[in-house]
Amino acid sequence: KQLTEHRYIFLHRAVGSLVLSSLHSLFSFIVRQNVVRSCTRWLQEQQYKPWRLRSLKLQPLTPVPSDLQISRAQTAKPVNHLAEEIGLLPEELEVYGRSKAKVRLSLLERLNSQPDGKYVLVAGVTPTPLGEGKSTVTIGLVQALSAHLNLNSFACLRQPSQGPTFGIKGGAAGGGYAQVIPMEEFNLHLTGDIHAITAANNLVAAAIDARMLHEATQSDKALFSRLVPSVNGVRRFSPIQISRLRRLGIIKSDPSSLSPEEVNSFVRLDLDPEKITWHRVVDTNDRFLRKITIGQASTEKGLTRETGFDIAVASEIMAILALADSMEDMKSRLGRMVVGTSRSGTPVTAEDLGVSGALAVLMKDAIKPTLMQTLEGTPVFVHAGPFANIAHGNSSVLADKLALKLVGEDGFVVTEAGFGADIGMEKFFNIKCRASGLRPNAVVLVATIRALKMHGGGPSVSAGAPLPTEYISENLNLVSGGCQSNLKKQIQNAQQFGVPVVVAINVFRTDTPAEIDLVCQLAKECGAFDAVPCHHWMQGGRGAVELAQAVKEATSKPSYFQFLYDLQMPIVEKIRTIAKRIYGADDIDVSAEAQRKIDYYHEQQGYSTLPICMAKTHLSLSHLPERKGAPTGFVLPIRDVRASVGAGFIYPLVGTMSTMPGLPTRACFYDIDIDPITEEISGLF
Amino acid sequence: KQLTEHRYIFLHRAVGSLVLSSLHSLFSFIVRQNVVRSCTRWLQEQQYKPWRLRSLKLQPLTPVPSDLQISRAQTAKPVNHLAEEIGLLPEELEVYGRSKAKVRLSLLERLNSQPDGKYVLVAGVTPTPLGEGKSTVTIGLVQALSAHLNLNSFACLRQPSQGPTFGIKGGAAGGGYAQVIPMEEFNLHLTGDIHAITAANNLVAAAIDARMLHEATQSDKALFSRLVPSVNGVRRFSPIQISRLRRLGIIKSDPSSLSPEEVNSFVRLDLDPEKITWHRVVDTNDRFLRKITIGQASTEKGLTRETGFDIAVASEIMAILALADSMEDMKSRLGRMVVGTSRSGTPVTAEDLGVSGALAVLMKDAIKPTLMQTLEGTPVFVHAGPFANIAHGNSSVLADKLALKLVGEDGFVVTEAGFGADIGMEKFFNIKCRASGLRPNAVVLVATIRALKMHGGGPSVSAGAPLPTEYISENLNLVSGGCQSNLKKQIQNAQQFGVPVVVAINVFRTDTPAEIDLVCQLAKECGAFDAVPCHHWMQGGRGAVELAQAVKEATSKPSYFQFLYDLQMPIVEKIRTIAKRIYGADDIDVSAEAQRKIDYYHEQQGYSTLPICMAKTHLSLSHLPERKGAPTGFVLPIRDVRASVGAGFIYPLVGTMSTMPGLPTRACFYDIDIDPITEEISGLF
Repeated sequence: KQLTEHRYIFLHRAVGSLVLSSLHSLFSFIVRQNVVRSCTRWLQEQQYKPWRLRSLKLQPLTPVPSDLQISRAQTAKPVNHLAEEIGLLPEELEVYGRSKAKVRLSLLERLNSQPDGKYVLVAGVTPTPLGEGKSTVTIGLVQALSAHLNLNSFACLRQPSQGPTFGIKGGAAGGGYAQVIPMEEFNLHLTGDIHAITAANNLVAAAIDARMLHEATQSDKALFSRLVPSVNGVRRFSPIQISRLRRLGIIKSDPSSLSPEEVNSFVRLDLDPEKITWHRVVDTNDRFLRKITIGQASTEKGLTRETGFDIAVASEIMAILALADSMEDMKSRLGRMVVGTSRSGTPVTAEDLGVSGALAVLMKDAIKPTLMQTLEGTPVFVHAGPFANIAHGNSSVLADKLALKLVGEDGFVVTEAGFGADIGMEKFFNIKCRASGLRPNAVVLVATIRALKMHGGGPSVSAGAPLPTEYISENLNLVSGGCQSNLKKQIQNAQQFGVPVVVAINVFRTDTPAEIDLVCQLAKECGAFDAVPCHHWMQGGRGAVELAQAVKEATSKPSYFQFLYDLQMPIVEKIRTIAKRIYGADDIDVSAEAQRKIDYYHEQQGYSTLPICMAKTHLSLSHLPERKGAPTGFVLPIRDVRASVGAGFIYPLVGTMSTMPGLPTRACFYDIDIDPITEEISGLF
Repeated sequence: KQLTEHRYIFLHRAVGSLVLSSLHSLFSFIVRQNVVRSCTRWLQEQQYKPWRLRSLKLQPLTPVPSDLQISRAQTAKPVNHLAEEIGLLPEELEVYGRSKAKVRLSLLERLNSQPDGKYVLVAGVTPTPLGEGKSTVTIGLVQALSAHLNLNSFACLRQPSQGPTFGIKGGAAGGGYAQVIPMEEFNLHLTGDIHAITAANNLVAAAIDARMLHEATQSDKALFSRLVPSVNGVRRFSPIQISRLRRLGIIKSDPSSLSPEEVNSFVRLDLDPEKITWHRVVDTNDRFLRKITIGQASTEKGLTRETGFDIAVASEIMAILALADSMEDMKSRLGRMVVGTSRSGTPVTAEDLGVSGALAVLMKDAIKPTLMQTLEGTPVFVHAGPFANIAHGNSSVLADKLALKLVGEDGFVVTEAGFGADIGMEKFFNIKCRASGLRPNAVVLVATIRALKMHGGGPSVSAGAPLPTEYISENLNLVSGGCQSNLKKQIQNAQQFGVPVVVAINVFRTDTPAEIDLVCQLAKECGAFDAVPCHHWMQGGRGAVELAQAVKEATSKPSYFQFLYDLQMPIVEKIRTIAKRIYGADDIDVSAEAQRKIDYYHEQQGYSTLPICMAKTHLSLSHLPERKGAPTGFVLPIRDVRASVGAGFIYPLVGTMSTMPGLPTRACFYDIDIDPITEEISGLF
């Protein structure tokens, strides 16, 4: 050992003398080269970087353990390593703990000239109340593409509401060997986006009621002198107030120059308490807040009012987050949100309340998508999660755009639409693709033998109750019926937009080979580009390789995307087009109330050219949840029509939509716990 | 240049051959050494690391620019650099973006044997409604200690509520050249702790009302079969249900063995709707939620109930976060929270609702303090921010404990108590120090010439109105009056606990040298260890060096800390002790309602030995806000008494406390905006 140490010292000295003799000239050489090099390096860094993805190995067990056990058995890569592997620059990343990071939107500028990858939508047949596994297919598909076929791919998922996590079993991190990890992080606060939405939404609500109180208790003069206060002897309008003046047609900027009439119209929003449409929100399943009376403390001077709370993801601000394509776009959408109308019928906006800048400030971090990973270490964006009925039910435009740049020209972005294809996919095409300008290359239509049997005439399926025998033993007759009704119609629905369809059968243990073969055969007869069984739940990405290959094939063909309707069509015609061509209705029946609203919207500038976001049950192509298959001979009732002007759509109500879930007698929280020493969570799923 | 390159190549080759000849023996040497080295290194890493703090230079401008301008002109160190400088291990850090990080509690185990630093509390004289600058003194003091005297120090601050940020001007990041940066991050979502509290608090509320509905609409048998469902033919109690059974005195674990009476007492919490004390919360100034009626939708079957929302920081969960000293402690406190009483008068806890594990899961990240930095790059913990009236108004026990280990034996932890010393300091000693077991070494008592003049008989001071001339021109008479009344009493209050007091005069531009000298002289005559003027607002840490030296001196003396009262004293006696000895009251007057509650608490196990958390105005030592100085000859009315059993204190109500602020006519949000391109925020403060 001593000898070795002596050799080491000798080596050290010999190198030392050599180094010294050359050091001076070397140094000056380096300095001259450095400037050139650092410029070159900077330019290289700005360019697109090929991925060097290190996938995580899976060794699936049989029987498949619980989701939480599977999630915990895998060690996620540090998220900054993942980011580096997929070509993100360190300055484009904002790490949140070890396994989550927000990605800055500056990426879009850096990769501006980089061609987009292929854009794939995962939709589904009309589901049973149990759900048919679109999220697991989405995750299984990217695991197959990236970890098994070595093709760059990204899954873009919605952030789940925290309410149901503690209510009825069900998060949205996928399941089995197709999951986003760590699933606890995915299902809890994540990076705080929904909390930011709650804060922003409720600031608008507080501003509405406070404003009504202040208007009710102060003269025009008092209001004006408070709204435009004298600071060091000078009164000035804030920029947000100037915007309101302009909308009122008052082209003045000196507060003292306003006439009493102008002061009056400036200071009084004159909100009609009966016509306030803005609700408060919480991210909790709190049914007792569905309908409440507020303002009952004596300090509120008798200005009580009936209103309600929705679950946070039902906020229009969530829909805006999902549709905005830049900070600027988000800010202007937030300003345009209509919270109610004045007594004279004028829409009152968030900007009229003076609150739109503050909303953008509250949402400044939420606008950045969150990077996570699948069980096999492939990248996932989690961003936005609007309701699929009163809103459009799709993850964010920005996450898709960032992902399409990152995967590169030959890569794949797989994004998911809520509910069945008649709802989620239709809205994806007509609302989201219109907002983003992006064009899809293929649709993956998820089907289960279970759902197809239900559509083929099987007995009803409900959560909690055991499945009838038809669903756990072979029944080709029911399967065939489901294929030729609901599956066929949903394939045709996608084809109306000119996009090729790959049917993905999410295989359950009880499905028989003959049933699966039958679906594959009939799906292709009904016009699907391909139809393949998927085993990702049991096998991870390896179980979805066949699907991945089919998707790759389908996206290599040209796609002829077209919208279903033109925005210039009258509102009623747009609704009728969706009802007849997508749902298979004979016609629509517009209630008097709905017609009154449509007429009102027609008069308001810009409302009538908004796309339509149908609020319909997801359990049937029709408005009647019990009518399975592909119902015909029905007239779709349009009970009421509302507008989300900031998000940018009109939503007709077909029946009553619950925007606040409740808690069951035994809620999930009875089983949820954390070990105070190891910090391991139990009972989550 | 070519010559240089040739030399470089020659050098490279020469070194190469030398290296090759020695490589083999070197390699085996290294391998053998590596095991020893890595063990040694691991042990070294576990030990306390001396700080290598790189302070940030300040070049204060005159006149002092706006807080936001000052904050933005300074570039914060990346938070992981700061963490490394103060001896945190990378695995102890969870970075949130660039400038915030959560610190893991495992640090407490690693530095278990490391002696604590000195523990300094910043309190204040009874303030004017404008506040006297305790936060800026706290921050100025640590800037002086660390950046100017080269002594390790940590500031521990409360997280501000987001509500007031958008309501009435005022965050809590300090001000002038004594601030926490970036101030936008400090005042907005931070790392989501308050959002987690909101989610946890409202899950309890939703569970309460849902449970009442389920109990009202189901038989014992139906409730039991749902609460303890058969899973694959087996019924099992969850651990949280076993806990409830034990509290009911039922020592059984087989669900089928319960008698009908036992089933009845197990499934029915039988909450009395009139006696539910749990409120919902939002982190928004929403006055219309102060008193509301819930459950008015038809789905809630007529079970309407009057209740209200508080601002999120008023939640008992916030007080628990501030007092818990480990995850285990927090979890058991959450379980003990009492949400109301049954019709037969039994307290009903969060654990009875089955929700306590889920609450701990929601709070698992919130329990870790957030690391940020001052304008001069010195470390700050931001953690918890309970109300200073219905709760104890101090930052967290855990942040203080982590900081006391990190600063090392010769370092300083400076923590702040809300309101005047009669409230914040008294609660710090009697509640927080009891919970933590920590003992303070000194109190810094912040005074302003303005507040002293008010106590000396000056005209009333109110927010918004211009200051009367007494406050902006020299008036030694008023100053002297304030010193000999309020300042003297607050110094004596600290001395009752056996802790030395340093008076810090937070100097304003209009204060005269004679006024400042007078305070210094009188404060020392009244028993202060020292009294010094502070100029941190204009000069940063350099302006607080004199204070830092005085604090260093004060903490070098032995401190003889003692509590004011013994926990075994009857509740009424504890209240009387505080009223007489701290406030200077002649006695207390307990209302019948309060006495009834006290009697009830006396019967409940463990309630009567809780410490007392007075809910009294902060604007006077008495209960009458207009009585300044050191009032005497008054009897303190105890209107009502409540208990926060989870947080662990009884809170007597002296007058009405508002737990939900409102928005003014022109709220801050009118000026708050973000530039969509640069992402610069304006109008915050």
